[in-house]
Amino acid sequence: MTDPLQWVEASEFARVRDGVADPGDRVRAVATLSRINTLYMVMRAGSGHLGSSFSAADLVSHLYLRELRRPFEDGGDVYFSSKGHDAPGLYATLIGLGALPEADVHRLRRIDGLPGHPDVRTPHMPFNTGSLGMGISKAKGLVLADRRAGRDRRVYVLLGDGELQEGQNWEALAGAVRHGMRELTVIVDHNKIQSDTWVRDVSDLGDLEAKFRAFGWGVVRCDGNDPADIEAAFRKRAGGLAGLPVVIIADTVKGAGCATFAATTSMREGDTLYRFHSGAPSAADHRSARAELLDAAATLLRRHGLDPLRLREETPPAPAPADTVPTRLPQVYGEALLDLARRDARVMALDADLVLDTGLIPFAAALPERFIECGIAEQDMVSVAGGMAAGGLLPFVHSFSCFLHARPNEQIYNNASEGRRVVYVGSLAGLLPAAPGHSHQAVRDVSAVGGVPGLLVLEPANAAEVRAAVDLCAALPDSVYLRLVSAPVRAAVDALPAGPLEVGWGRTVRPGGRTVAVGAGPVVLAQLLAAADLLAADGIDLTVVNLPWLNRVDPQWLGALADAADALAVVENHYTHGGQADTVARALLERPADRRPRFRGIGLTALPRCGTEAEALAAHGLDAPTLATALRSLTA
Amino acid sequence: MTDPLQWVEASEFARVRDGVADPGDRVRAVATLSRINTLYMVMRAGSGHLGSSFSAADLVSHLYLRELRRPFEDGGDVYFSSKGHDAPGLYATLIGLGALPEADVHRLRRIDGLPGHPDVRTPHMPFNTGSLGMGISKAKGLVLADRRAGRDRRVYVLLGDGELQEGQNWEALAGAVRHGMRELTVIVDHNKIQSDTWVRDVSDLGDLEAKFRAFGWGVVRCDGNDPADIEAAFRKRAGGLAGLPVVIIADTVKGAGCATFAATTSMREGDTLYRFHSGAPSAADHRSARAELLDAAATLLRRHGLDPLRLREETPPAPAPADTVPTRLPQVYGEALLDLARRDARVMALDADLVLDTGLIPFAAALPERFIECGIAEQDMVSVAGGMAAGGLLPFVHSFSCFLHARPNEQIYNNASEGRRVVYVGSLAGLLPAAPGHSHQAVRDVSAVGGVPGLLVLEPANAAEVRAAVDLCAALPDSVYLRLVSAPVRAAVDALPAGPLEVGWGRTVRPGGRTVAVGAGPVVLAQLLAAADLLAADGIDLTVVNLPWLNRVDPQWLGALADAADALAVVENHYTHGGQADTVARALLERPADRRPRFRGIGLTALPRCGTEAEALAAHGLDAPTLATALRSLTA
Repeated sequence: MTDPLQWVEASEFARVRDGVADPGDRVRAVATLSRINTLYMVMRAGSGHLGSSFSAADLVSHLYLRELRRPFEDGGDVYFSSKGHDAPGLYATLIGLGALPEADVHRLRRIDGLPGHPDVRTPHMPFNTGSLGMGISKAKGLVLADRRAGRDRRVYVLLGDGELQEGQNWEALAGAVRHGMRELTVIVDHNKIQSDTWVRDVSDLGDLEAKFRAFGWGVVRCDGNDPADIEAAFRKRAGGLAGLPVVIIADTVKGAGCATFAATTSMREGDTLYRFHSGAPSAADHRSARAELLDAAATLLRRHGLDPLRLREETPPAPAPADTVPTRLPQVYGEALLDLARRDARVMALDADLVLDTGLIPFAAALPERFIECGIAEQDMVSVAGGMAAGGLLPFVHSFSCFLHARPNEQIYNNASEGRRVVYVGSLAGLLPAAPGHSHQAVRDVSAVGGVPGLLVLEPANAAEVRAAVDLCAALPDSVYLRLVSAPVRAAVDALPAGPLEVGWGRTVRPGGRTVAVGAGPVVLAQLLAAADLLAADGIDLTVVNLPWLNRVDPQWLGALADAADALAVVENHYTHGGQADTVARALLERPADRRPRFRGIGLTALPRCGTEAEALAAHGLDAPTLATALRSLTA
Repeated sequence: MTDPLQWVEASEFARVRDGVADPGDRVRAVATLSRINTLYMVMRAGSGHLGSSFSAADLVSHLYLRELRRPFEDGGDVYFSSKGHDAPGLYATLIGLGALPEADVHRLRRIDGLPGHPDVRTPHMPFNTGSLGMGISKAKGLVLADRRAGRDRRVYVLLGDGELQEGQNWEALAGAVRHGMRELTVIVDHNKIQSDTWVRDVSDLGDLEAKFRAFGWGVVRCDGNDPADIEAAFRKRAGGLAGLPVVIIADTVKGAGCATFAATTSMREGDTLYRFHSGAPSAADHRSARAELLDAAATLLRRHGLDPLRLREETPPAPAPADTVPTRLPQVYGEALLDLARRDARVMALDADLVLDTGLIPFAAALPERFIECGIAEQDMVSVAGGMAAGGLLPFVHSFSCFLHARPNEQIYNNASEGRRVVYVGSLAGLLPAAPGHSHQAVRDVSAVGGVPGLLVLEPANAAEVRAAVDLCAALPDSVYLRLVSAPVRAAVDALPAGPLEVGWGRTVRPGGRTVAVGAGPVVLAQLLAAADLLAADGIDLTVVNLPWLNRVDPQWLGALADAADALAVVENHYTHGGQADTVARALLERPADRRPRFRGIGLTALPRCGTEAEALAAHGLDAPTLATALRSLTA
C-alpha cells in the first residue's frame, strides 16, 4: 500500500484565479497549484522532471495568464517548450486552465495519457520536443508559415540553459535576425543546473547576454521566479525591442517554489550531483515537499481572503512486483569500463551530461583525468573522440542511444571514414522504459548507424554479456556501437550464461525444435523465453537464440541454424525495418540453398508508444502472448 | 586537343625559397608558385576549389614556412584544413615543399592520387575533412590525446567563414576554454564568399570578433593575404594571448593573388553568384589567370635577383567523348519544382548554400518570397521545414545528399515523429561524380534515413522520372527523400520512358529471361543495360528492372517478378548493407513461397574511392564488365 497522493481540481484553479485580483499573485497562485499537481503526477507516474517543471512554473503561468493572446484558439499566440523536460509542469498548468482533460492528471507517462515529453497528439503541443535544440528552428518555420498565410500571431519558445550547449541553437539565431523575426520570443529557463549538475561545471555558458547580442538578438534579463520581474521583462520586449527577435534570460532556481527540491537548498556549492532531475522523490521528500507547497498555497489564499484549498486524494495502486534483478546494465557497464580502463591506458570516457544514466559515476570519480564531460553537445563529443583516436587513445563515447545514433550521425561516419576506433555506448536503447516517450525511445539506432563501415552494433542481454562486451570492444579491430538497454533485466535473462562473444555468432539460450526465434538483449529475450513457455503448452517446442550482433551475422553459423529450422523469426526491440531482421533475411537469402525456412521479422512498425512496460510491449505486439501467437502462425 | 598546361617542379620551389631572404616575400613567393600549381591541378582534374585555395594560400604558406615547428615529423606541430575545400592549394604547397610526391601534381581527384577533399591516407592529412564544422572538435581531441601522451605540440585548424554557420563550431568552443587549450589556434579564412555567394547574403556572420570573445576565446584579426600582417597576428597570439585558445580572423579575398578569380574583381557588389567556387575555369580564364600568376612570380623573382621561373609543360589527354546527355537531373528537378510551385501555393524551397548545385536558381529567381536560404546549417534548415509544415506549408529541403541524410538525421526523424510532410532533396547522391572524394559521395543515405517511419526514399533515373517524382512528392501522404544523382545521364537511360510512379513498384526497362537485375537511378541502370549487352553475347538474356523505391517494395509486384526469375540481383549505387538489396531480400524471404530465386546484392563494400567515373565504377565492381561477370556467376 503506497501513501495517498493529493491533487487539485481544475475548478479549484478557477476559483483561485477568479479570487486573486493582483495579476502577479494570480500568476504565483496558478504556478503553486500547478506545482502541487506536478508533484502528484510525477509521484503517480514514478518518474518525471520535477526540478525543470518547478523552475519554469512561474514563467509558464505568466505566459498563459498574462502574455499569450488566445493561446487555446486557432490562430492565437503559440507557446511551446523546446527543452520538453518540463512537460509535467506544463500539463499541470494546462489542466488547471481547463485546456487539457482533468482526468489526464492521473495519466502522466501512461499509454493514451500524457507522454513523458511533449507530443503533437496532445492538445496545445505544437511540436514534439524532448530531443534538445530544435525549438528556435521550429519556431522560425512557424513564423515563416504564418507570414505566408497572413496570420498575425506571436511564437514563444522555452529553452533550458543546458540545452544551449546544442549547436543547433547557434545555427538558428542568424536566420531569425535575417528575417527580422519580431514575432519570435525565446525564454531561457536559466536554472543553472542541467541533467547531472551545475551547468557551469559541465560546459560553462559564459556571458549568455553577450553571446545572444553578438548574434544580433535583443536581450532582456529577469528573475524568472518573480512574477513582477517576469512582467517587466515582457514589457521591455514589447517596448524598445519590438522590432527584433528577443531572448529573455530568466534566472530561475531548479526546483523553485519548494525548498525540498530547490537547487539552492537541495544542492549546495560543492555538491556534484542534483538528485531531482527526473526520478520521483522518496516518500519522505514527497511528504516534505507537499507540505511546503500546500503551505505556500494556503498563505496565498489567506492573503486574498479565499477559503482553504480543497484537495482530492488518491491512493494509486501499488505496482505489481516485477521479476527483475536490481542491477541495471548501465551500472554494470560503468564498472566494467572502469575495470578495463585500469588495465588499458588508452581508454577514455566521454559523456554528454548523462553521467548518472550512463553508469559513469564510478569512472568519473576514480579516473577524473580520463573522463571528459562534453555537455549536451553530441556532435562535438563524437568528433573530439575522433581526434583522441587519431592521437592514439581509445575513446568510449556515451549518451542516450536516442541522441547518440542520430544527432552526431555524420560525425560517427566521418570517424569511421578515417578508420578510427571509437566505442559508442548508447544507453536507454529500445522501447523500454516507455515512460519518457518516443523522443527517448531509441528504436531506429540500428538502422541509422548499422550501415557505417567498420562499425559493429552489439546489444548485450545481461550483466555477464555486458562485461564480456566491454572487454571485446577493446580487443576488436572494429569500432562498436554498444546498445545498452536501461530497463530492468528479468531474472530469467539475468541467469543466462555469457558465452564467448564472436562477431556475427549467436547462441541458443533455449534449445527446442524446428521453430526458431532469434533476438538480442534483455527485453526481447525475456519475452521470447516467456513465449516459449506459452507455446510449450500447445506442444510447440520453441528454440530461442540470442544473436547479440545487430548488423552482422556469420553465414556459417546462420547456415547451421537454418538447416535445423522450418521456421525462423527475428524479433527486435527496434523498428522492423533496417535492423537485425533485414540483416538475417539478406544472409539467409544469399545462402546457396534450395530450402530456406519460413521467415518473419517482428518489431515496431509505428512510433513507439509512451506507457508502462506492459502497456508498451502489448501496444507493439512484443509481449509474450502476442509473440507466441505470431510464432504459432509461422509454425503452421 | 586541349591547351598545354604549365606547372612548377619542387626543385624550383626550393630554388626560390633559398633565394628569397626576406621571410615575408618568401611566404608570398611560395604562395604564388603554389597558386600556379593549384591552377594546373584543377585544370587537369577538370574541377577543384580554386577560389578557396587561393584565398588561403598566403596563410598556408606562412604556416609551413614560419609558424609550424617540424610539421612533417612525428610529434611536430599539426595543421589541417577543416573547410577542406582548399585541398588543391594545400597539396600544391606540400608538393612544393617536398612533403608530397611531385608526381601527385598530375593526379588531383584521380584514383590513388590526391582526393578532392583531404583524406588521412594522404601524408600529412591528420583528418578527413570536406564535411564542414568538425575541425575544432577534432583538434580538441588531438590536444587532449597529446596531453595524455605528454606530447608538446600545437594544433592549427583552418576554417572557412561560411563553415561557421555550422552549429558544431559553436558547440565546440566552450570545451576548449574549459580545458584551457592554449595549444589550439583556429584560423578563419574570412573571404566573405561561401559556395554560392557573399556570406552576408546567405547568413550574415555579424560581429565575428564579438562572437568568439563572448564564447571566451582570444581573438586576433589580420589581413590574411598580407604576409607581414599574418606574421604580426601569430606574434600577438603567442604573446598576450598565449594562455588561451585563440582564433585568428584572417580577412582574405576569395581567389586572391589573381584578378581573374579574385572576388573583388570577378564578383562585384550586386553580383549574386561567384563563378569560381569549384569548377575548372574556361580556357580563356585559365590563360589570363596563368599570365597574371606568372607575372607576379616573375616580379618577385626579379626583385630578389633570381633567374626566371622554369616551367614544365604538359598536354593532358583530351577526355573521351561521353555518351551522356547535357542536362543534369538537379537542373531538371529545379525546373519541375518551380512548375509545381506555380500550381501549388504550399510549396516552399529551403537551401543550405548550394543553390547552384541543387538546381534552385530558377526557383529562387522566380519566387524569391518562397525561397529560404538557410546557409550551411542543415539541422536548422530541417527543423525550420518542420515548423513550416506545422504551419500548413509543403517544404522542399535541399542539400547534397552526403550532408542531408546525416547532419540533420535526428531532425528528420523528429519531423517524421510529428507526421509532418517534408520533401528532402539530396543531390550529388551516390558514387558519381567520384572526383570530390568520399566526404561528398553519398552512399550511406538510404540506410541512414530508410528506417524513418513514413519516409519514402526515391531515386529517379532520368529527366522524365524526375518530373514525375516531383509531382508525386506533392501528392503522396508520405514524406519523401528524393535521391538525385548529379552525374551526367547516359543517353540509354535518358531515353527510358517514365511510367507512372507507384510506391514500391518497379518497371522492366529491358525485357529478357529468368536472370533479373534490379536497380535504380541513372548510374546503376546505365551499367546494367551495358552489362546486358555484354551478357547477350554469351547467350544470357538479362532482364533489367528499374525499381526507383529504395526502402519499399510492393510484395505483389515483387512476387510476380520473383516467379519469373531463377536468379535475382539487386545492384546499388550505395553500400550494399542497409539499402535496396536488404529491403528486397527481406520481402522475398517473407513471401510465402517454396521456391525463391537465387539472390545476390551488389553494391559498395568499402569507402567510396575518389577518381574519374570509370576509375570509381571499376574500383567498386559497379562497371558493366564486372557486373556482367557477377550476374553470369549467379546464372550458373
